[in-house]
Amino acid sequence: MKKLLLLAAALPSYAFAQAPDRAAELRDAALGDDVAWNIVEGLTTEIGPRMAATEAEARARDWAVAKLKALGFANVRIEPYAMQGWLRGEETAEIVSPFPQKMAVTALGASASTGPKGILGEVVGFGSIDALKAAAPEKVKGKIVFVWHRMAPTQNGSGYAAFGPVRWNAASIASEKAAAAIVIRSVGTDHHRNPHAGMTTFAPGVKPIPAGALSVPDAENLERMLARGRPITMRLTLTPQLTGTRQSGNVVAEVPGRDPSLPIILIGGHLDSWDLGTGAIDDAAGVAITTAAAKRIMDTGRPLRTIRIVWFGAEEVGGLGGKAYRQAHASEAHALVGESDFGAGRVWQFTMNTGAGGEAVKARIGAVLAPLGVVASKEEAHAGTDVEPVADTGTGVLGLNQDGTRYFDLHHTPDDTLDKVDPEELRQNVAAWTAALAVIAESRDDLRVK
Amino acid sequence: MKKLLLLAAALPSYAFAQAPDRAAELRDAALGDDVAWNIVEGLTTEIGPRMAATEAEARARDWAVAKLKALGFANVRIEPYAMQGWLRGEETAEIVSPFPQKMAVTALGASASTGPKGILGEVVGFGSIDALKAAAPEKVKGKIVFVWHRMAPTQNGSGYAAFGPVRWNAASIASEKAAAAIVIRSVGTDHHRNPHAGMTTFAPGVKPIPAGALSVPDAENLERMLARGRPITMRLTLTPQLTGTRQSGNVVAEVPGRDPSLPIILIGGHLDSWDLGTGAIDDAAGVAITTAAAKRIMDTGRPLRTIRIVWFGAEEVGGLGGKAYRQAHASEAHALVGESDFGAGRVWQFTMNTGAGGEAVKARIGAVLAPLGVVASKEEAHAGTDVEPVADTGTGVLGLNQDGTRYFDLHHTPDDTLDKVDPEELRQNVAAWTAALAVIAESRDDLRVK
Repeated sequence: MKKLLLLAAALPSYAFAQAPDRAAELRDAALGDDVAWNIVEGLTTEIGPRMAATEAEARARDWAVAKLKALGFANVRIEPYAMQGWLRGEETAEIVSPFPQKMAVTALGASASTGPKGILGEVVGFGSIDALKAAAPEKVKGKIVFVWHRMAPTQNGSGYAAFGPVRWNAASIASEKAAAAIVIRSVGTDHHRNPHAGMTTFAPGVKPIPAGALSVPDAENLERMLARGRPITMRLTLTPQLTGTRQSGNVVAEVPGRDPSLPIILIGGHLDSWDLGTGAIDDAAGVAITTAAAKRIMDTGRPLRTIRIVWFGAEEVGGLGGKAYRQAHASEAHALVGESDFGAGRVWQFTMNTGAGGEAVKARIGAVLAPLGVVASKEEAHAGTDVEPVADTGTGVLGLNQDGTRYFDLHHTPDDTLDKVDPEELRQNVAAWTAALAVIAESRDDLRVK
Repeated sequence: MKKLLLLAAALPSYAFAQAPDRAAELRDAALGDDVAWNIVEGLTTEIGPRMAATEAEARARDWAVAKLKALGFANVRIEPYAMQGWLRGEETAEIVSPFPQKMAVTALGASASTGPKGILGEVVGFGSIDALKAAAPEKVKGKIVFVWHRMAPTQNGSGYAAFGPVRWNAASIASEKAAAAIVIRSVGTDHHRNPHAGMTTFAPGVKPIPAGALSVPDAENLERMLARGRPITMRLTLTPQLTGTRQSGNVVAEVPGRDPSLPIILIGGHLDSWDLGTGAIDDAAGVAITTAAAKRIMDTGRPLRTIRIVWFGAEEVGGLGGKAYRQAHASEAHALVGESDFGAGRVWQFTMNTGAGGEAVKARIGAVLAPLGVVASKEEAHAGTDVEPVADTGTGVLGLNQDGTRYFDLHHTPDDTLDKVDPEELRQNVAAWTAALAVIAESRDDLRVK
């Protein structure tokens, strides 16, 4: 990004004169943005972790309302909904024999409790979820299943789809084979003693069992222990609990458009976070980037179309905020949705789903993003979890895809903290969103896919 | 190191033909070493953390005896000594108001206990130990002192001397001003939620108070909170305890020399580790490197001088193993000492303390190390903590100084695990030690400083 700024400063007559329009001017000005940083800094410092349906998430909503009002947005409000709460308890894992030592573990969302005394069991290891699927039930019954994998960093995050099932589904498979519990190698690409939290799911009718994630160094250690061929006994203690019906909510703000009859643009990120870190890259950055971009549009005058910004709640535990939003706004016409929820790395790729009516807009966005080093792609845009329910109604989808090479080093870990955000990369994100919004919000074209 | 290996393979007639002696041949063969890796892998996998005076340290001694015997060393034995034990208890830190959130903390060695209910107190912050020293006692009395700093990586580790006093001495200063407790920014250069353990010391007559280290991201967060100018209240719970008189010990092995009348060479590292990690770089690597090098000398025939390898105990908690060794071996003549205890990074610098009698040997070592990229320096060699008591009797000191740029990212943290060791860099260490030992062990010269 430093190079980019140098380029912007040194070559305005060449690099940017080719797109001397308002979108390009707004894009370049956004490279000096501080609004996004201030939101990320504020949320992580003054609130910290924001687990769905907790008092901390409620404080975060109040913080968001105050911030969005102070920034000058219209119609700022909380849209509440009810949900089931879940709270982490104690969590320890210890190899009892033959190589006694503690391991760093965290409970996965939906994990059952081992009870305060924990479970003592022999570890049975599998190098992949497919190996677990193929295992004879008698090999698994009553044991503590351990599943590892070889997830490696990818720029587009596709490693998550490939290795995520170890977290999402292996617990359910283990339970079906009557395992006592399961620990997985964290679905992550770092080598720190910080396990990666996240949801697991049990298929309908399958009994939840205690399910945890070991940090990657611990998982590698356990793999080495198993390779020695001796029985390995682990004591696992995880005591998460369901806390009953609690309130969560989405925080909504708007930049009212000049023509309220036009379908609106919906952008945002999610306000809730996992409880281990302070939710800096997941997803304070996302709400900050989209909000800062919308403010830049607002500050230069009323756009043609209304832009609605939503800081969604309860994304991490099942996308509940996004589902509640769609239900509450079913009667409203949405033209296009976009979410920033893949960290704070620079935007490297532009994708957009639209119909024939939106092709010209798509081409203009591609052109105005190119000076930021963004590659226009014909790949399908993926709506974020929060805006997907609305996207499913046939809206256009804007994809400003962030570089995810290091995202899964931090994802859902205690290490998701402010120091991981590069202010210059954050500004490049704001510039990309500002430029794209500037084009979209002034267009009367039909941006919907269907 | 890959480049180095290529060089060795491609240019034998040039690069190494200038030193076509036994030391150079041993050096090059050592670049294929697996003994050191096997020791680090074994200790971290089969034993894990090895806190001084614990059952784990005792298991590690037994493991070491078996390993050193299997490698073929002579006179393998444990030399026990008694010491006071200390065990970590619960440790939590939480900002109670105005920005409630948990922080990652660990108790420093010698910390008093807060009791199980913890201490609730207002935080008073200082940007340096000097600022704490200068503070009026009434500003500190009854408060939880927080000291931060700006430690940055250095290749030669000199940042530790500059910023280490924040850990070593600030607790004592805070206690003298009647602080209720102290938390410091970890003395480390990483940005992970893993606090750095380590000893603090209270001056004679000063009452120990609870003393913890926050992880660097947490310390930066607390610094940002304080910058907002509102009173910050923290609940701190640290419940370490003294465990009374326990046994520790050094593990000793030898390569007997052809001339037992010559003063011996003493090398090694320390077997104990802090309890949070598995002690891979601190200091399984050190015992592994020196042991692998000694084995290479042994395997080519009996050296002129006896080489003694010691895996010292209880280094982390005050260098007790090194002191016990000197006491037990006061009557023996030592020619030169050397310790590997600065991680597993490549050797970048060669230093050596010796008298006029050792200058020729020093020059030969410098020459045989140069093809490994090692820079010969006239700086003073620093004996490691374990061998310093013997060095103080006037022996020569060998310094094969490792690149410490990333050492304080890991030092005393849960992250000190096997995956942080680069096998090629470990081999370069073995090659450097093998080459230096080959020269020293065949020399009759007087290597002592005085």
